[in-house]
Amino acid sequence: MDILFLGTSAGVPTRKRNVTAIAVSENQSRNWCLVDCGEGTQQQLLRTHLSLHNLQAIFITHIHGDHCYGLIGLLASAGMSGRKTPLRIVAPQGIREWIEATKRHTQLFIPYELHFTEVESLTAINVGPFEVHTTELSHRVPSYAYRFTEKIIRTSLDTDKLKLQGIQPGPVWGKLRQGQDITHEGQQLLSQDFVQQEVQVRKIVVCGDNDHPQLLQSLCQDCDVLVHEATYTQDIAAKASDAGHSYAGLIATFAESMQLPNLILTHFSPRYQSDPEAPCSVEHIRREAYALYSGNLYLAEDFDHYQLMQHGEIKKN
Amino acid sequence: MDILFLGTSAGVPTRKRNVTAIAVSENQSRNWCLVDCGEGTQQQLLRTHLSLHNLQAIFITHIHGDHCYGLIGLLASAGMSGRKTPLRIVAPQGIREWIEATKRHTQLFIPYELHFTEVESLTAINVGPFEVHTTELSHRVPSYAYRFTEKIIRTSLDTDKLKLQGIQPGPVWGKLRQGQDITHEGQQLLSQDFVQQEVQVRKIVVCGDNDHPQLLQSLCQDCDVLVHEATYTQDIAAKASDAGHSYAGLIATFAESMQLPNLILTHFSPRYQSDPEAPCSVEHIRREAYALYSGNLYLAEDFDHYQLMQHGEIKKN
Repeated sequence: MDILFLGTSAGVPTRKRNVTAIAVSENQSRNWCLVDCGEGTQQQLLRTHLSLHNLQAIFITHIHGDHCYGLIGLLASAGMSGRKTPLRIVAPQGIREWIEATKRHTQLFIPYELHFTEVESLTAINVGPFEVHTTELSHRVPSYAYRFTEKIIRTSLDTDKLKLQGIQPGPVWGKLRQGQDITHEGQQLLSQDFVQQEVQVRKIVVCGDNDHPQLLQSLCQDCDVLVHEATYTQDIAAKASDAGHSYAGLIATFAESMQLPNLILTHFSPRYQSDPEAPCSVEHIRREAYALYSGNLYLAEDFDHYQLMQHGEIKKN
Repeated sequence: MDILFLGTSAGVPTRKRNVTAIAVSENQSRNWCLVDCGEGTQQQLLRTHLSLHNLQAIFITHIHGDHCYGLIGLLASAGMSGRKTPLRIVAPQGIREWIEATKRHTQLFIPYELHFTEVESLTAINVGPFEVHTTELSHRVPSYAYRFTEKIIRTSLDTDKLKLQGIQPGPVWGKLRQGQDITHEGQQLLSQDFVQQEVQVRKIVVCGDNDHPQLLQSLCQDCDVLVHEATYTQDIAAKASDAGHSYAGLIATFAESMQLPNLILTHFSPRYQSDPEAPCSVEHIRREAYALYSGNLYLAEDFDHYQLMQHGEIKKN
């Protein structure tokens, strides 16, 4: 599974960070899903390999503008670039109403079907190779997390057993691996006797704005990666005017309590600068989280590409 | 007067051109006006010297998304960055309704007053140093042009006359220039006898999408600069699926018939590439216009900055 960050700033864009949008895709696949769609997401996409033709579904975490104002332009552009296949949108009901109002007032024409699923009544939905579950978070407006579960079935042939029965490597092995039952030198061979299947389950949880990480306890069970906002450090969060956000230490403490192997922080307040020497730097967010979390910690930047590898480790490109 | 292009692509953004937005400002002033506000305009602004605090008014030409979908994010960001002063919006009625719907469905909070003027019923409006007039154009939806008129009063002292009367350079000259009547060496000197005022009027016309340039005849009378779309060349326009646009030759012919001194073309279909050797290049738009127009011709690019100088000529930075 791949995660590509298209925007990592909270509230307003900066010169280095656009507002929130995150692409989740199957490794090596052209198909992808989008979580949130802040203004300028379609412009960010022009700098990636992702195409609007291969977009399977859009998941919106909540109705605040920095998470959805790019949606209408992206839907329009997909149409203008010739998309005809239906597109699934999973979002709060307000998003559906806003799209309808925008269609009406600005003559937005979308030449493909939108299949809308209200997140409020969602339990689980299958999109491409993913099963997606959700849970409600705590923010100033209803906000949601989405968990993408991918099941990979790995097939292996018990070659020792074959050799013990005197069946040497050759086309017979291939047929058995493919599930064919065959007769070989007068012997009836059943594929199921020689083939082992291992099911590997991988889970990525991508969250909307949230000031109460404990709400993720069930959704994060056995998850490989948690992507969560860390808008502030604790000191600044205490005096920030916009409530409903997590600070680095809060989410790090939760991730540690759950023994999550990988934590990616994003959605940083624009007051945190890139320069580690700045009086208010994202480096301070990193330090606060690092002190409380012993897993693999990452702070996302725009166009960061994280690959979840076979054994659950992350490779960052 | 200054014109800064923030987006020059038609319909969808490209890697080199964002969708339409044009800043018009008084030369050497921090105050500015915005004409159209396609998605990503606030991100483009981060790469300029323009501040949302000094934005005097926004003029929207028509309701199509590539001319207005950046409006809501820009209004939100101006609020989040602390703007308190009211903002004037001149736009079709649909824009007002869309902003209201967006406020409702996405809890958009704007902590300053929006003073909305419906362009449908506008004759003229004063914004900062500009008097702004409008006229309706021809497009698939109602579309408008805005003319910005600036009056500069230049004061000069008749130094020959002063010298003839034996009044030598000194503080007396300064006082007379400032409009003070004085007594000098027993002589009563009236400022108006030595001061000349020259009123210089400059006009810039910025247009929405339009397939009938003749509609601009009255608005373009004596104008210094016309900014107009040239979405296509004539050959492509004939087979384009989206009607209601001008091709280079059409608007060039109009500008020539009006003897306009400066014509800036913008809003190019993304099929026209920057490379002059490409099979479909903006160079073809330039050539088609150049063959029919003898004034100063410009093809806008993002972040192009045009200054209208004292004698009506354009300086491009």
